[in-house]
Amino acid sequence: MSKPADPAGDEAFRAIDVIRKKRDGGELSRPEIEFLVRGYTAGKIPDYQISAWLMAALLKGLTRTETAALTDAMLHSGETLDFADLPAAKIDKHSTGGVGDKTSLVLAPLVAAAGLYVPMISGRGLGHTGGTLDKLEAIPGFNVRISLKRFREILRTCGCAMIGQTGEIAPADRLFYSLRDVTGTVESPFLICASIMSKKLAEGIDGLVLDVKTGSGAFMKTDEEAAFLAELMVETGQRMGKRVVALLTDMDQPLGRKVGNALEVEEVIDVLNGTGPEDLRELCLELAAWMIHLGVQAGTIGDARKLAVELIRSGEAFKKFRELVKLQGGDAAAIDDSSKLPRARFSMDVTSPSSGCVAAIQCEDVGTACVVLGGGREKKEDSVDPAVGIVLHKKVGDPVEFGESLCTLHYNSEARAGRAKTLMERSYRIGDSIPVPRKLIRRIISAHEN
Amino acid sequence: MSKPADPAGDEAFRAIDVIRKKRDGGELSRPEIEFLVRGYTAGKIPDYQISAWLMAALLKGLTRTETAALTDAMLHSGETLDFADLPAAKIDKHSTGGVGDKTSLVLAPLVAAAGLYVPMISGRGLGHTGGTLDKLEAIPGFNVRISLKRFREILRTCGCAMIGQTGEIAPADRLFYSLRDVTGTVESPFLICASIMSKKLAEGIDGLVLDVKTGSGAFMKTDEEAAFLAELMVETGQRMGKRVVALLTDMDQPLGRKVGNALEVEEVIDVLNGTGPEDLRELCLELAAWMIHLGVQAGTIGDARKLAVELIRSGEAFKKFRELVKLQGGDAAAIDDSSKLPRARFSMDVTSPSSGCVAAIQCEDVGTACVVLGGGREKKEDSVDPAVGIVLHKKVGDPVEFGESLCTLHYNSEARAGRAKTLMERSYRIGDSIPVPRKLIRRIISAHEN
Repeated sequence: MSKPADPAGDEAFRAIDVIRKKRDGGELSRPEIEFLVRGYTAGKIPDYQISAWLMAALLKGLTRTETAALTDAMLHSGETLDFADLPAAKIDKHSTGGVGDKTSLVLAPLVAAAGLYVPMISGRGLGHTGGTLDKLEAIPGFNVRISLKRFREILRTCGCAMIGQTGEIAPADRLFYSLRDVTGTVESPFLICASIMSKKLAEGIDGLVLDVKTGSGAFMKTDEEAAFLAELMVETGQRMGKRVVALLTDMDQPLGRKVGNALEVEEVIDVLNGTGPEDLRELCLELAAWMIHLGVQAGTIGDARKLAVELIRSGEAFKKFRELVKLQGGDAAAIDDSSKLPRARFSMDVTSPSSGCVAAIQCEDVGTACVVLGGGREKKEDSVDPAVGIVLHKKVGDPVEFGESLCTLHYNSEARAGRAKTLMERSYRIGDSIPVPRKLIRRIISAHEN
Repeated sequence: MSKPADPAGDEAFRAIDVIRKKRDGGELSRPEIEFLVRGYTAGKIPDYQISAWLMAALLKGLTRTETAALTDAMLHSGETLDFADLPAAKIDKHSTGGVGDKTSLVLAPLVAAAGLYVPMISGRGLGHTGGTLDKLEAIPGFNVRISLKRFREILRTCGCAMIGQTGEIAPADRLFYSLRDVTGTVESPFLICASIMSKKLAEGIDGLVLDVKTGSGAFMKTDEEAAFLAELMVETGQRMGKRVVALLTDMDQPLGRKVGNALEVEEVIDVLNGTGPEDLRELCLELAAWMIHLGVQAGTIGDARKLAVELIRSGEAFKKFRELVKLQGGDAAAIDDSSKLPRARFSMDVTSPSSGCVAAIQCEDVGTACVVLGGGREKKEDSVDPAVGIVLHKKVGDPVEFGESLCTLHYNSEARAGRAKTLMERSYRIGDSIPVPRKLIRRIISAHEN
């Protein structure tokens, strides 16, 4: 092991001084934060100094000004997109992640159908939460690895386009995130805020709707934690001149009834056709309403919602989705007839061990069961089986009889199905009484409250 | 820059979990701490995880049990010495460092003359504080780089022996210290305690007297900070079955009147001959008394002090020093006649800018002035001029007339002398009134008080 050194060089600052300042609870200046981000991205400041700083930042916190400066420095560590030539507002949505969350696939075409532009850069699933890119790829032929040039062309033509992270956008965030992942410094709202907002603001958007999940299946377990993060992101976005609103939404059980890539695309098609499960449909309409409201900057949120409902009823939203699928190389026939989406060979019911009422569904177990079936990744290199997944017949509050089916597993491997079954049995808690229903949209945060 | 990874391997623990536990304020188990120390020393846990853990440990603190476990793990990261075959107690002293602190050179022969064994492993000067090894090397021929075998022989023959750190002893401490130095994690009493105690307890001693400095020239600026560290070290040593006592002693001005390697050896010879400055003599007697008291485990501390006084009066202590010098290759003639020690070619007085009373002497400036003259190191690779230094004619509380000499610089380079003079002028503060004298021995901590 070689001896660590302080590679101060001839910069205006020394990393050790910036670390000490944060350690002692001081507020860093914008140039100090830029020095850290630029120095680390350029490989001039070593991992071991940044990780000490990250731990100090996690334990001592960052001020709003520091958080904005960190976001800005990461945003400017790479390319930023500019869609100023497009004739309407550019609006995106970001979710902090959960199980069964497929709203992005509904929202992009729905909001584009309203005449706005949705340039959406999404991630893949890792751990128990799914990823938008994996869901899109369940549509045969759908290509999420298009060039930025093609992304721009599709966005102009269709009003929405969907791709994965590229190396050009906010490269500092990738470096910081990799280091946070192995040094116990993920769980800081300030660092989470800078990571999310730097990537989203690099998309060249005018407005952003944040879906901050709260509950046992969310990263933020309590409404208080979720509200703190939401407020921080709203304020940071507003400081950077963007229209931002955050919805605190429930993730105490999976969203909708289907978990698994092709199964979730089916549910997206249902919602775009005016059917689908109530909670998913409601959340999509509410998020779409806020996206439209931020984009048009006129009328009430109620008007925006009415427009979203009408765009689904008229078939315009579904038509837009079909257009997007075709432009990105996907097979429109699989959208028109969802039996043409990938299907698992086998299915198996998980039945209730008693009669009563569903008291809780542990989200993490459901997400993990889907990963175990092959529908997600345990390691980044894993490939994904688009066909497998879980259909929930019973959700929280539903009455259930002994032996009745709680859910159906769709699988391609017996061995995997056995493990997933055990997880699903553990996931469902059957009780004697009807639990108090949780509100789906728990709170709306449109300005910082401190 | 390559992507960091969590090299968990097939160990019982993962570094990330241990980091998170400390981050969240949990108490680590002994196996968890051993895993970190062993893993880092073996190169299995990377710098960036250890630095995140160090920052969490600094900000969240360690419990007494964790501190003892960390000390123990670092102690057992290398060889430990065993002098169980020697027929009396093995006692050492450690000082947290200051300016003009040459007590080790007095104490080793003095306590050996009392029939105990003093196996002393010391450091070199870095920054504004001096080092025992540099002082010993001011004696022509004195060799501090002897083998552990020869160290043992001299200890057996003479009762004391003095060498530098070796790679075999507590290697984990060197790795941790290098990393702490560049990650802003030096200033934790828990980490300082583990670092000091692991090295000292590897010496195979039965008892240890800690000289914890307090005041403007010390690492710990207040009595409260110093007492906290002292108590921690006493408890840690006691938990490991050792007799330990800590003296909180004043370092608000330099100790004694001479700063610089050969000049400090002169002062050591004076004290061993029953003369020398009052403060240095007093501190040496008090530390010697506690070392003897811990070693013989009988009589009162007053009896032990009387023995120390008598060993100086009778010439036994000086004789022992002369024996040590000869055994380690030094020129005894330079001890018998200190005019044979290295002498600087030039000298220059720094005079008082006004009449009044010395209100303060800034220790750090005095130490830095000595380094500037060439008597210490700014970088680890620097060589040291044994001859140069500063003789203080006035100390805090002394009356002084305008133009009277405050101190004399002994130097070999005009250019260096000019910079040192500026520092010494800044170091002395002359006031109108006599400052309240500070107690030299401020407190004695012989058991943990919590």
